[in-house]
Amino acid sequence: MFNDYYLSLSNLVQPIITAELAALAQTLPQHLQEVSASYLQKPGKRLRPVLLLLCCEALGGNAEDALPAAAAVELFHTWTLLHDDVIDHDTLRRGQETGHIRGRRLGREKWHLPPPAATDYGQALAILAGDVLQGSVTHLFTGLKAVPAELRIALLERLSGKLNPELLAGEQQDVELSCCPLTEISEAEILEMMRLKTGALLSFCAETGAAIGARQEPQKCSAAQKLAAFAEACGLAFQLQDDILGIIGEEKHLGKNIASDLREGKRTLIILRTLAAATQPERAFLLQTLGNRQAGEEDWRQLTELIKRCGALESTAALAEKYLHIALDSLDDALPESTGRNHLRAWAGMMTKRKV
Amino acid sequence: MFNDYYLSLSNLVQPIITAELAALAQTLPQHLQEVSASYLQKPGKRLRPVLLLLCCEALGGNAEDALPAAAAVELFHTWTLLHDDVIDHDTLRRGQETGHIRGRRLGREKWHLPPPAATDYGQALAILAGDVLQGSVTHLFTGLKAVPAELRIALLERLSGKLNPELLAGEQQDVELSCCPLTEISEAEILEMMRLKTGALLSFCAETGAAIGARQEPQKCSAAQKLAAFAEACGLAFQLQDDILGIIGEEKHLGKNIASDLREGKRTLIILRTLAAATQPERAFLLQTLGNRQAGEEDWRQLTELIKRCGALESTAALAEKYLHIALDSLDDALPESTGRNHLRAWAGMMTKRKV
Repeated sequence: MFNDYYLSLSNLVQPIITAELAALAQTLPQHLQEVSASYLQKPGKRLRPVLLLLCCEALGGNAEDALPAAAAVELFHTWTLLHDDVIDHDTLRRGQETGHIRGRRLGREKWHLPPPAATDYGQALAILAGDVLQGSVTHLFTGLKAVPAELRIALLERLSGKLNPELLAGEQQDVELSCCPLTEISEAEILEMMRLKTGALLSFCAETGAAIGARQEPQKCSAAQKLAAFAEACGLAFQLQDDILGIIGEEKHLGKNIASDLREGKRTLIILRTLAAATQPERAFLLQTLGNRQAGEEDWRQLTELIKRCGALESTAALAEKYLHIALDSLDDALPESTGRNHLRAWAGMMTKRKV
Repeated sequence: MFNDYYLSLSNLVQPIITAELAALAQTLPQHLQEVSASYLQKPGKRLRPVLLLLCCEALGGNAEDALPAAAAVELFHTWTLLHDDVIDHDTLRRGQETGHIRGRRLGREKWHLPPPAATDYGQALAILAGDVLQGSVTHLFTGLKAVPAELRIALLERLSGKLNPELLAGEQQDVELSCCPLTEISEAEILEMMRLKTGALLSFCAETGAAIGARQEPQKCSAAQKLAAFAEACGLAFQLQDDILGIIGEEKHLGKNIASDLREGKRTLIILRTLAAATQPERAFLLQTLGNRQAGEEDWRQLTELIKRCGALESTAALAEKYLHIALDSLDDALPESTGRNHLRAWAGMMTKRKV
C-alpha cells in the first residue's frame, strides 16, 4: 500500500520535470537538450523527490505546493551524476550510456568526428548539460508559487550556501581518496565523504519538504532539523548498501558495469574491512588488483570471493542497519505517531532493502 | 576621472567576493578551494560588476545595495571560464595557468600522480570548482538584503530561467561551430553565438542593476530592458574587439597564448571575412592551417599576415563600432542626460578602446 502511495507521489513529479525540460528546449541546441534530458526520461526511483514530499505532508503541508522543489532535487541529483560520470569515466548509468558517452556518439554521428575529437565533444556536452540542470534547480525553486517569497529565499540560501559546497566537498574528497594509498585511509574519512556526497542532499530534501509543510524557515523549525538528521543517517545506510550492491549486484539490475567499483579502485568501507581482515598474501593481492586497469575477469572474481570470505559484506550490512536505527530514532523524535511518520518509516526501509 | 570612479566601484566588489570565498573555505577541501579562487585573486577588469552598479545608480539606486549581485555576476563569468577552459584545453588565462592546469600541478605535487591521472585530477577539480562558483552566484543573490524578497526571486528567475540556458546554448553553439566545416558557417551564426555567449551576461548585468536601482521587476521596467539592449550590443562590440586582439594582441598583455585562436581553429568573423576576400591559393592555405595542430610558428605568422592583408581586421573593427553606436542609441533612449548616462557611455567606450 505504501508502494502505491510512493508511486502516486513519484508520478506527480515527472510532469514538472518534463515541463522544465520543454522550457529549456526553447533555447538549447538539439544535442545539449538531448544530453541534459538523457538521465531524466526513464523515471528512476525518485527517492529524493518522494522524501521531500513526504516530509512536507508529515508537517501538515500539501504535496502539490512542494512539487517544483521535489522536481528540483531530482535535477540537482542528476547534474551531479552527469559531472560525476565525466570525472569517473563511467560509461553506463541506469542501463544506458552516460552523458559524455552519448555526447561522443552524437559527435560521431552528426559531425563525423574522429575518436579524440568525439571524446572531447561528448565531454563538453556532459559538462554543459550538468551546468544547464544546475541552473534549472534554482529556476524550479523560484517557481514555488505557493511558498512565500521570504521562505523561497531561505530555501535557496540553504541550497546554494550549504548543500552545494557540502556536496562538492564530498565529490572532491572522493577524488582525493582515490589518489590516496589505501593503507592510509581511515573509515572515518570514508564515512565523512559519504555524509557529504550522499547524506547532504537527502538532508536538504527532508528539511526543505518540512519547511514548506510547516511554512517555517528550515533552520528555525526543529522538526525540519530532526528530519534532516533522519535523512542524513538514511543516506549513510543507502550508500553502504550501494557499496554492497557494487560487489554482489548484477549488471542487469544495477544498470552499471559489473565490478566497476573494483575496477575503478573505489575506496569503500568494504575494501577497508577486507584489508583489515585479510592474510598477508591476500592483502598483497587486493592492493595490487584493486583499480588495476590491467587486471582481468578472473582477478575480479577472486577479489569478490576474498571480500565475501572476509565477512566485510556482513559487517557493512550491519553498519547500514545501525545507521537505519539511528535514522528511525531521529524520526520518532521529530514526529508524533501519524500516517506521515509511517510513510517516512516505510521510505527509510527502502534504503537497505533495495536490490538496485 | 571616470577611470577613478570605475576603480572605486570595482574596489567595492572585491571584499564581497573575498567573503564568499572565505565562507566556502569552511567547507571545501584545500585543492578545491584553491582552484575555485584561482581566477578571482588577481582582480581583472570587473567589466560586468561595474556595469551592474552603474545601471543601478543610473536608475536612482544605491550601489551598496547591489554589491552582492555585482559580485555574483563576476562569479558567474568565472565559472563559465573554468568550464570553458576545460572544454577548449586552454592552458593560460590572465597570464596564469588555467584551473585544470593548476589542478594537474596540485595532483602531481600532493599525490605524485603520473601524467594521465594528474590530467584527470586537474580536470575534475576545474569541473567541480566551476560548480562551486555556480552555486555561489545563487548564494550571493539570496543575500541581497536591501532588495525585497519578491524582487530577489524575480532576479533569480531571470538568472536561472533566461541567462543560464542562453549562455550554455552559446557555449554549445561555439563547440558546434568548431566542428562545422568553415565554408558552411554564416556570419549570422557566429553573431548569434556571440550574442548568447557574451551578450546575454552583459544584458543580465544591465537589467539586474537597473531593476535593483528602480525597485522594479526587470521585465516590467522599460529602462531596464533598454539598458539590457544597450549592454547586449556592447557585448557584440566587445567580442569582436576580443577577436581582433586574438590576432594582433601580444601575449604579455593578453595573458593567453599568442595565436591561440588560430591554433584552436576558432571560427570568427575575421576568419570568415578573410576566407571571402582571399585568392584561391590563400583560401587553401587558410583552410589547411587553421586549427591544425601540426602547423608551426611560420604558418601562424603567414596566416596572421594574410588576415591583415585581406582587410578583415578593419572591417571587423568597423562592425564593432557599428554595434557600439547601436548600443549608445539604446542608452540615449533608456535614460535622460545625466551623470549616470555619462558613466555608462564611458563604460561602453571601453569595449572597443581596450588593448587587453
